[in-house]
Amino acid sequence: MFKSKIVKLVVNDVRFPTSLEQHGSDAMHSDPDYSVAYVVVETDADLKGYGLTFTVGRGTEIVVCAVEALSSLVIGKTLEEIVTDFSAFYRLLTSDGQMRWVNWARERINLILIFLQPLWKLLVDMDPRKLIRCIDFRYITDALTEQEALGEVCQLNDEQMLKEGYPAYTTSCAWLGYSDEQLSQLCSAALAEGWTRFKVKVGADLQDDIRRCSLIRKMIGPENTLMIDANQRWNVGEAVSWITTLAEFRPLWIEEPTSPDDILGHAAISKALVPLGIGVATGEQCHNRVMFKQFLQASALQFVQIDSCRVGSVNENLAILLMAAKFKVPVCPHAGGVGLCELVQHLILFDYISLSASLNNRMCEYVDHLHEHFRSPTVIKNAHYMPPTDPGFSCEMLDESVQKYGFPHGDVWRSILKQKGSQDNFSE
Amino acid sequence: MFKSKIVKLVVNDVRFPTSLEQHGSDAMHSDPDYSVAYVVVETDADLKGYGLTFTVGRGTEIVVCAVEALSSLVIGKTLEEIVTDFSAFYRLLTSDGQMRWVNWARERINLILIFLQPLWKLLVDMDPRKLIRCIDFRYITDALTEQEALGEVCQLNDEQMLKEGYPAYTTSCAWLGYSDEQLSQLCSAALAEGWTRFKVKVGADLQDDIRRCSLIRKMIGPENTLMIDANQRWNVGEAVSWITTLAEFRPLWIEEPTSPDDILGHAAISKALVPLGIGVATGEQCHNRVMFKQFLQASALQFVQIDSCRVGSVNENLAILLMAAKFKVPVCPHAGGVGLCELVQHLILFDYISLSASLNNRMCEYVDHLHEHFRSPTVIKNAHYMPPTDPGFSCEMLDESVQKYGFPHGDVWRSILKQKGSQDNFSE
Repeated sequence: MFKSKIVKLVVNDVRFPTSLEQHGSDAMHSDPDYSVAYVVVETDADLKGYGLTFTVGRGTEIVVCAVEALSSLVIGKTLEEIVTDFSAFYRLLTSDGQMRWVNWARERINLILIFLQPLWKLLVDMDPRKLIRCIDFRYITDALTEQEALGEVCQLNDEQMLKEGYPAYTTSCAWLGYSDEQLSQLCSAALAEGWTRFKVKVGADLQDDIRRCSLIRKMIGPENTLMIDANQRWNVGEAVSWITTLAEFRPLWIEEPTSPDDILGHAAISKALVPLGIGVATGEQCHNRVMFKQFLQASALQFVQIDSCRVGSVNENLAILLMAAKFKVPVCPHAGGVGLCELVQHLILFDYISLSASLNNRMCEYVDHLHEHFRSPTVIKNAHYMPPTDPGFSCEMLDESVQKYGFPHGDVWRSILKQKGSQDNFSE
Repeated sequence: MFKSKIVKLVVNDVRFPTSLEQHGSDAMHSDPDYSVAYVVVETDADLKGYGLTFTVGRGTEIVVCAVEALSSLVIGKTLEEIVTDFSAFYRLLTSDGQMRWVNWARERINLILIFLQPLWKLLVDMDPRKLIRCIDFRYITDALTEQEALGEVCQLNDEQMLKEGYPAYTTSCAWLGYSDEQLSQLCSAALAEGWTRFKVKVGADLQDDIRRCSLIRKMIGPENTLMIDANQRWNVGEAVSWITTLAEFRPLWIEEPTSPDDILGHAAISKALVPLGIGVATGEQCHNRVMFKQFLQASALQFVQIDSCRVGSVNENLAILLMAAKFKVPVCPHAGGVGLCELVQHLILFDYISLSASLNNRMCEYVDHLHEHFRSPTVIKNAHYMPPTDPGFSCEMLDESVQKYGFPHGDVWRSILKQKGSQDNFSE
């Protein structure tokens, strides 16, 4: 198998019209159409690989173009060449002498290889020295050396995870665009299903936020966990005063209070919130290991929210998970969108079994949308992610979904765009 | 004129095969082909606008795709709508509810409008309150408020600049791929032309660097200024020890010692170099005002190197120039490439006339390549940039150049790719 050669990359622009029902709406993204650049890697053997990166609609075509631009670096490689020196392959993709100028390390290229096992199992069973060699340590040795990284790897057995799964929290109940009634209904249903941790979108209007947080806190009671998420809406000072007002609802964390690039701003907010017992969570738009390194060095976050597609996929996330382990900051991944739950469950299972060995203040985001388009969708039991058992990274999509939601020529978009066209004509 | 409407954006992928002669080579970019995504904006009147963003070859097609994706936000707008509220227009481009997920503020969109004056003149003559309204203050009010920004604007007259120009330094003598002989020849020629400030590329091999720096320092003598540039090659600790070895050649600054995202790393390097009297310069790959804000807050740089295309063009650079003024850190722009000198001269003239009013430790990079492709190329006299007098942002290219170097169908690339194809066939 390892002698087989990659011969083709097919990239699809697949978009789901989620904005029609305000799923996923927040203080900065008012009309997201959850979308993916979906890649199928073909080899000269009877093997395929699947990968995706998440977007929220317009602009997906740019990511498609970016994957196509990288494909020449991948086509012709044998699997053996890639796995023999993962780190060199990774640097090839992120540091091409010409393309790096377009900030490759900042693009979200998520190129998926072909596995015989589920990815999480491959990672937890991997020899730690081999694991460490997947990481590009350039620019992070002042925070984590190879030797230190090796020292962070423990190896629990996977029994507990296979039995109970990894704790999840839900964001499905309280998107910003939902009415109070919808919010109450969804919250009741989630409580009935066994959810104990809930996230609420805030940041657009303070009075709205007070009303919504109060409603949710009443419904879930004092024992359950509440988190709030501002999706980068505020300036630093504004964040502190706004959150202070919402402190009475006892959120565990405030997520993305300000610009995702503002390490020093997050450090200032973190410091100001210590007396209120509220942590700062961020990371879903943090573009590489160098940024995460500084967030950790500056004590600018108390919860590390890795995302499976924002950074350079698995290798870059390994570096981030190891740094979080060294700085003893819990990792609570970002998920939702399309396929993000499917992908990130592998990384957080690895984090638990091989690095943290703790569930204290740890949980993984879950959003109950669009899983039906995947060959091996996530399995949630009693508000826990159950470890996937199929080989790979769980992101193979159904051919039918790729066809139907393909942008702009799939049936769904043809119909939406046609309708939109006739409306636009009507309004003129 | 302001009633005229934008009706079309034509985007061209134009690449110059500079790698054939090692122009522009450095420790991280071994084979750059200087390139631009070049935009012509057409209106329904007899007016056109021109814009470009710089890249180094492969990947330019992604920037082209990105410009096309943004074009729907621009087409149909009248010039009046845009100029009446520049800040709102800027936020529209950088914060579209769907496209912002693909990190728009991090892409280099450089959309150029139509001016009756040279841009620098338009800026220095603009009412300061109107000028400030071009800036999006979200995320930077903890470093610079609108009121503080207004307080930074002085207004020198432009007499001195028109007479003597703005001081430049040259990078043309010492690209990493040049031989010692080439380096000596170019350096002699530059001295004869009146250049007094020289930059040398370093970072690939320490012994090479010692030899090259020693050669240049001997040639330029103790009075002239030397800068060194590592193009992000090092880890933090490595940077400090490498630069310490090169300190005997008395460089004014070390440029891009490590990852352009590493604010705290640059702060550590800056601190370690204080006893050596060497400053840290960075910014050409710094992607927005939030990053520059932190570099300034953390005393992580002693020279701010804005780039005309990396951030969201003029508006974003105004925010950066004003913050640099407030923090009293000199601005020494990055230029070279294709068109970067043409563009950035406008910004540094504005910086001098309206903000800094000082030439102390200030100068603008100059590279003597590819100017012949522009309708109004930069004018250098006695190693100074002479203020452009033609209307606009000086980046209209010659139609002939756009045709000839268009990728991949222009004559130049057809011939190179054909030759490459036959070589590839030969080597197999």
